[in-house]
Amino acid sequence: MQKSNRKLSTDASGVYIISVTPFLDDGALDLPSTDRLVDFYLEQGVNGITILGMMGEAPKLSAEESMTFARRVLRRLDGRIPTIVGVSAPGLAPMRELAVAVMDMGAAGVMVAPGAGIRSDDGYYGYFAQVFATLGPDLPVVLQDYPQSTGVYLPVPVFSRLVTDFPQLVMLKHEDCPGLQKLSTIRKLEEQGLQRRVSILVGNGGIYYPQELARGADGAMTGIAFPEMLVKVYALHKAGRADEAEDLFDAYLPYVRHEQQPAIGLAVRKEVLRRRGAIASAKLRAPGPKLEATDLAELDRMLERLERRLAGLKIRDAA
Amino acid sequence: MQKSNRKLSTDASGVYIISVTPFLDDGALDLPSTDRLVDFYLEQGVNGITILGMMGEAPKLSAEESMTFARRVLRRLDGRIPTIVGVSAPGLAPMRELAVAVMDMGAAGVMVAPGAGIRSDDGYYGYFAQVFATLGPDLPVVLQDYPQSTGVYLPVPVFSRLVTDFPQLVMLKHEDCPGLQKLSTIRKLEEQGLQRRVSILVGNGGIYYPQELARGADGAMTGIAFPEMLVKVYALHKAGRADEAEDLFDAYLPYVRHEQQPAIGLAVRKEVLRRRGAIASAKLRAPGPKLEATDLAELDRMLERLERRLAGLKIRDAA
Amino acid sequence: MQKSNRKLSTDASGVYIISVTPFLDDGALDLPSTDRLVDFYLEQGVNGITILGMMGEAPKLSAEESMTFARRVLRRLDGRIPTIVGVSAPGLAPMRELAVAVMDMGAAGVMVAPGAGIRSDDGYYGYFAQVFATLGPDLPVVLQDYPQSTGVYLPVPVFSRLVTDFPQLVMLKHEDCPGLQKLSTIRKLEEQGLQRRVSILVGNGGIYYPQELARGADGAMTGIAFPEMLVKVYALHKAGRADEAEDLFDAYLPYVRHEQQPAIGLAVRKEVLRRRGAIASAKLRAPGPKLEATDLAELDRMLERLERRLAGLKIRDAA
Amino acid sequence: MQKSNRKLSTDASGVYIISVTPFLDDGALDLPSTDRLVDFYLEQGVNGITILGMMGEAPKLSAEESMTFARRVLRRLDGRIPTIVGVSAPGLAPMRELAVAVMDMGAAGVMVAPGAGIRSDDGYYGYFAQVFATLGPDLPVVLQDYPQSTGVYLPVPVFSRLVTDFPQLVMLKHEDCPGLQKLSTIRKLEEQGLQRRVSILVGNGGIYYPQELARGADGAMTGIAFPEMLVKVYALHKAGRADEAEDLFDAYLPYVRHEQQPAIGLAVRKEVLRRRGAIASAKLRAPGPKLEATDLAELDRMLERLERRLAGLKIRDAA
Repeated sequence: MQKSNRKLSTDASGVYIISVTPFLDDGALDLPSTDRLVDFYLEQGVNGITILGMMGEAPKLSAEESMTFARRVLRRLDGRIPTIVGVSAPGLAPMRELAVAVMDMGAAGVMVAPGAGIRSDDGYYGYFAQVFATLGPDLPVVLQDYPQSTGVYLPVPVFSRLVTDFPQLVMLKHEDCPGLQKLSTIRKLEEQGLQRRVSILVGNGGIYYPQELARGADGAMTGIAFPEMLVKVYALHKAGRADEAEDLFDAYLPYVRHEQQPAIGLAVRKEVLRRRGAIASAKLRAPGPKLEATDLAELDRMLERLERRLAGLKIRDAA
Repeated sequence: MQKSNRKLSTDASGVYIISVTPFLDDGALDLPSTDRLVDFYLEQGVNGITILGMMGEAPKLSAEESMTFARRVLRRLDGRIPTIVGVSAPGLAPMRELAVAVMDMGAAGVMVAPGAGIRSDDGYYGYFAQVFATLGPDLPVVLQDYPQSTGVYLPVPVFSRLVTDFPQLVMLKHEDCPGLQKLSTIRKLEEQGLQRRVSILVGNGGIYYPQELARGADGAMTGIAFPEMLVKVYALHKAGRADEAEDLFDAYLPYVRHEQQPAIGLAVRKEVLRRRGAIASAKLRAPGPKLEATDLAELDRMLERLERRLAGLKIRDAA
Repeated sequence: MQKSNRKLSTDASGVYIISVTPFLDDGALDLPSTDRLVDFYLEQGVNGITILGMMGEAPKLSAEESMTFARRVLRRLDGRIPTIVGVSAPGLAPMRELAVAVMDMGAAGVMVAPGAGIRSDDGYYGYFAQVFATLGPDLPVVLQDYPQSTGVYLPVPVFSRLVTDFPQLVMLKHEDCPGLQKLSTIRKLEEQGLQRRVSILVGNGGIYYPQELARGADGAMTGIAFPEMLVKVYALHKAGRADEAEDLFDAYLPYVRHEQQPAIGLAVRKEVLRRRGAIASAKLRAPGPKLEATDLAELDRMLERLERRLAGLKIRDAA
Repeated sequence: MQKSNRKLSTDASGVYIISVTPFLDDGALDLPSTDRLVDFYLEQGVNGITILGMMGEAPKLSAEESMTFARRVLRRLDGRIPTIVGVSAPGLAPMRELAVAVMDMGAAGVMVAPGAGIRSDDGYYGYFAQVFATLGPDLPVVLQDYPQSTGVYLPVPVFSRLVTDFPQLVMLKHEDCPGLQKLSTIRKLEEQGLQRRVSILVGNGGIYYPQELARGADGAMTGIAFPEMLVKVYALHKAGRADEAEDLFDAYLPYVRHEQQPAIGLAVRKEVLRRRGAIASAKLRAPGPKLEATDLAELDRMLERLERRLAGLKIRDAA
């Protein structure tokens, strides 16, 4: 396996799994599970790993815990695949502080979502111009476009200006919804030579993954308890076997839909990761939702049905 | 077929399709297509029809057009299945005016979502207490719980109080998300005799339909270009064939997910209804999204794949 | 008094009062009070009147009541001062229908706020381009910029493009907050010849009125139970007596601040209008807030203090 | 002056100033100005100080800077007046960590606003029940009710339950808007013996301060560049001289209104604090608004007019 303590570039592709943060039943950060989880993700064949993302439980870590967790993940990975670290923050000064620290630890790049209250095309551009000026030209940045959570919409012309003016912008994490037309529009601008090509990885739990690959996405950056699905679908698609890719995806879709539910979805994801041996406890830090007996029985059935569907599929591996 | 110009009751079950509003290419209300669409829905076996819903294009009709459309639908149905009319409005006076008018035309009941700006349990209860006082005890009401759109959350204790105090509350349109635990909680209260049983039909494009039926939903009230799927899944589930019900649902799920996208999903739905001959034009009233060539090609492929999956399914009809 | 059944133009200035909608105690539309209210506004010297605005109780009228109310106001005014009618609507077809109807009745122009869900500079421009195309080149339009209510922000470059491309855009209703810099920026663009000059009237209950006049506003379009204050402040400012204008304003400011409270403020305004004999009842249509005994006592004291401050002021009338 | 390194209690009254965070022109934390600012606040006679509040620039500090700033303020104060520290956080674990740390440093209590996404009466109660369980019974807590920022509404019945069940809840920071009725309702419940009496300090820049004092508030907790106004108004009110209190307040009101503008208001406040010698630089950390030449000229005029009004007032000091 190639060492990749290089920095993130526009060539990035495949699956960057968004890591959960493992806790013990008492809520303490679970560092042994962190190692196990990293191993698990590597075994499933992911191409990169993203930590301290906005939507996971990273905001429930103290600053010190965040550093401890990041250090542990980076040490375990030991440069085998690139790590992206979420550094979005209300102020640019603490954003810079965190970004510098994790790059020193060996991260490949950082991910930034627009701050709350950004308005208008110029406001959006201006915010990221400040971010890039603050982080400096040598720090690769992923722009996270997730208006459902941030409340801020990324217009394509603004993205074009940012890509043109800031070479360190190497990747778009695409999870606007509806977002399929936006993805196609960006790819078309690139094909017409009107915009530098960047990597685009998709989110939203991967629920539109086959459609997004068909429209030119370079892979996925999302969390799901079955990263191997994202990996295999990507490989099949890459191998020109789009129908088989989608057949495999569709087999997982009932589960993907279930895990993509707001709030409770993360509890489902952790429970499945626990059952798969990737983490010791499905614990979510408070405040957070809990799975009840009915939810667990429902999940049992859903996983049995998934297994049955997978058994019925006849897809030769793309690898 | 039984005449059902009776009023809506807590026994309501099965599929209440949320009707689109057909327009001509120039944006005018298309009344001949309205007839055709009603026939189409009847042919697919739906148990009821809901019009002037909050999320469709009803807000783009003038008051007069709304009455014209409602009259046309009710006349065409001629009491064969019950019609529910959305009457949510910022003021109670115009809400009452519309409700009385459509009941006079033969509607079976009305649907009301909470008004903007409702806060706290007492605020929610108080709003609906006013609604029920305004509409009177003889007018059956569906409470629409759709916080993603209204921004207002329905707590279960408030629902219990409303059900207890107002017999005319006969149905919950359930589309909170995540909402599975809420559905189970309500059914449990009813089973324990702590709350009068009401009809619960589910929305959200039906994307959690099998899970919701398993948790005690009485059917679905949602829009989709394939109402026969909702009908058959319900019948299979009712016949105790839950696995076959879910197999059928899962075959449609890739399409369900696609149609459930915000905004653009309605354009997809109308395009499929047009292809199926149910309406003359897929036109959406301005302002609204448009399907581009890439979107249409994507839809072609999605429908072909759906057909292939359906051909591969071996499910004996439940009817 | 000059007849002004001419259309609204970029010359509009002074005070356009936003009319309340009078109801009887039982909630019915109060047409005799409508006449009295129109007379009251005229007596206070306002330069125009705006009805069916977004933030009043117009959304609580039925479509028919809206027409009845508009007709009554226009008949009573008989062209003595121009009337602007709010026609914002989710769909362009019903917006056009209402706009045409009120212009036929003698309105001077219409006011449109951006529709919900507009995003990005191009999205904003595109929405109003559609509005202008729908309403036609001969219908004068006021663009209402009120992001606190619409959730949609108007960037200055978009406003410039709209002003340049659509001569029928004659007025900006300015009530962004904070909005003082935006107002200055627009006036500077006009002075530099980079943008056609339009009328700018300010809202937000007039709470920044002196600052806005100093920055180039042409007057106010807002509701308040003391329209004469807005009128006199404008006249004094116009006469170059800015300090006296602000002294007068400041005397009213404690009340202005009180009336500008969300929700309850409208109840205060109607109560004062009732006490002043402008309307028969302070009734707000349900659902709406109510003044309690404490609120009324507080208001008594506030009005006494206002009277005392006014008695202490030595300002010669500007008229 | 009495040493008050005791804990915060329900007796707290007067003015708890919300401190700005001073930066150097280059954006670095300005510790010498921190000392000077603390001295300034003490000289103006405030009764307490609140730091790391949600709405200031505290979110723009790194975790380490927050601790450095808190330590500096507490050391400078040396227990002369109580300090409240804002500890709101997405997760309870880091909230506890910060709370314990600042209490160890000598804080008198902590302030907590409800987390994002709280819904329903039970949801609100449950969140704070968790907070209290996490922080323990010995840590005095201020509940911050600021729905304009948090999006979460505090119903009075929920507040009653919390006050009854958790003795460590000693203060309400009241800044709901409209909020006057809520304040009166709480005081009435206390008077009727239905609820334990807690301290209520008001926010919203103090814009409704006289009305709130009349309705039973114990003072103010807010930021403003003229804390002496809040102090004197409180003293006059306390001395039964409500009219003089309000006269003094009204003299400041034009400025209060100006400083209370969203976003830009903080820039105004820092500029005035700089002019008064309380801090060295008016710098706001990026991203943030900037005062332009027009804004500064406007501020000059506003301060001159304030001085003139104060000179004209004949109010004997209450102290």
